[in-house]
Amino acid sequence: MNIFSTTDIQNWERFYRANLINSLTGFKAASLIGTQNAVGKTNLAIFSSIFHIGSDPALVGYINRPRKAAPHTLANIEATHVYTINHIHPSMVEKAHQTSAKYPIEVSEFEKVGLTEEFSQDFPAPFVKESKVKYALRLQEIVPIAMNETFLVIGKIKKVIIEEDIISPDGFLELDKAQSICSNGIDSYYRAQPIIRLDYAKP
Amino acid sequence: MNIFSTTDIQNWERFYRANLINSLTGFKAASLIGTQNAVGKTNLAIFSSIFHIGSDPALVGYINRPRKAAPHTLANIEATHVYTINHIHPSMVEKAHQTSAKYPIEVSEFEKVGLTEEFSQDFPAPFVKESKVKYALRLQEIVPIAMNETFLVIGKIKKVIIEEDIISPDGFLELDKAQSICSNGIDSYYRAQPIIRLDYAKP
Repeated sequence: MNIFSTTDIQNWERFYRANLINSLTGFKAASLIGTQNAVGKTNLAIFSSIFHIGSDPALVGYINRPRKAAPHTLANIEATHVYTINHIHPSMVEKAHQTSAKYPIEVSEFEKVGLTEEFSQDFPAPFVKESKVKYALRLQEIVPIAMNETFLVIGKIKKVIIEEDIISPDGFLELDKAQSICSNGIDSYYRAQPIIRLDYAKP
Repeated sequence: MNIFSTTDIQNWERFYRANLINSLTGFKAASLIGTQNAVGKTNLAIFSSIFHIGSDPALVGYINRPRKAAPHTLANIEATHVYTINHIHPSMVEKAHQTSAKYPIEVSEFEKVGLTEEFSQDFPAPFVKESKVKYALRLQEIVPIAMNETFLVIGKIKKVIIEEDIISPDGFLELDKAQSICSNGIDSYYRAQPIIRLDYAKP
C-alpha cells in the first residue's frame, strides 16, 4: 500500500492533488443543476457533491465552489430560491461535462451544449428534458463553509419527475435501469451494475 | 413520466418515501467510518452521504443522522477528533451493510461483522484492513442542520492509504480497478464500469 501524510498532500503538484483528492471520496452522483436568473435567463451546470440529508422532510444538499470560481448557479438560486437537479445518462455525458466550461453569464449552457429546457407549469427553473430522473427544490438555507469559501446549499424537494418503469413497488428507484451515471474525480464517468440488495440489518 | 408533488411526497407511506427519496439523489460512495471512544473501544459504521468539499486544504464532509438514531460515531469523533473513512469492495458488502444494525455501545462492529482493525502508528482511529482505499481525518467543524437534527461533519485529510496499482500518473484513482462499490437508496450496492474520461472543458 502507498501511505501519504499531510506533508505529502501539501507538496503534491496542484493538479495531481486535485485529481487524487477528488477521487478519494469514491463514486458520486454527478448531476445537472438547472436555474434561471430574475429575468428568466437559464443556466445549467454539472455538480458532483450532491447528497441526501433527510427523507421527511425531503432535504438534499450540494456543495457550491467559491463564489469567484462558480458564481452563476448560486446567484440564480439566491435570486429565485428554486432550482432543479437532473440525472445524467450515457448519451448525454459529453454535453453534461461541457457545462463545466466557464461560459459568460449571458450564455445559456442549454443552447451551447445542446440539451433541452423543459418547464413545469408552476415551477420557475428549467429541467433537462433528456433526463429520466429529476427533481425540483426550494432553497432552505445556504451555509457558508469558512475554511475554503465553499457553500452548503440545502433545498427541500418540491416536485419529482421519474420515468415510470424504474419505480419499484416499495419506492426504490432502479437507477441502473434508468442508466443514471456516476462520476469519479473531476472528469470520469461510469455506469453502475447491481451487486446485491440487502435486508434491513439487525444485531 | 410520473410527476409527484410535495403533497404526494408527504402522503407516501414512510418506508416508500424513505426508499424513493434516498434513491433520488443517485449513486453514492457508501463507505465505512471507523472511530474509537476515549478508552479505545472501536466502532465501525456504514455511511452513504460522504462528499468532497475541497482539495487544498483537503476537506471531506459527511452527514450524520440525528443523535438519537446514530449516536456512536458522532460521540466518538467529538471525544477523539479523529476518524477514518474506508472504501467497501464486493467481497465485504454484506459485512459492511451489517454495521448498520443497532449494536449496543459496548460492542465493536469490527468483531461482530468480521472485519479487521488496523492502526497506523500515529493515528488513534481504526482503519479497515480489507479496504484498498482509505483515509484518516481530523475533525474541523460540526455544523448542526436544525431542520432535521442531522449534522454536517467536516474533516481535514491527515493520512491516505491506497493500493499501489490504482494511482494514475496524474493522481487520478482508478476506483473501478480497486472495485470500490457505490450504493443506491438505503440497501443496494453496485460496481462501476468506466464510460469515458473527458478533457477539461473550455467554452
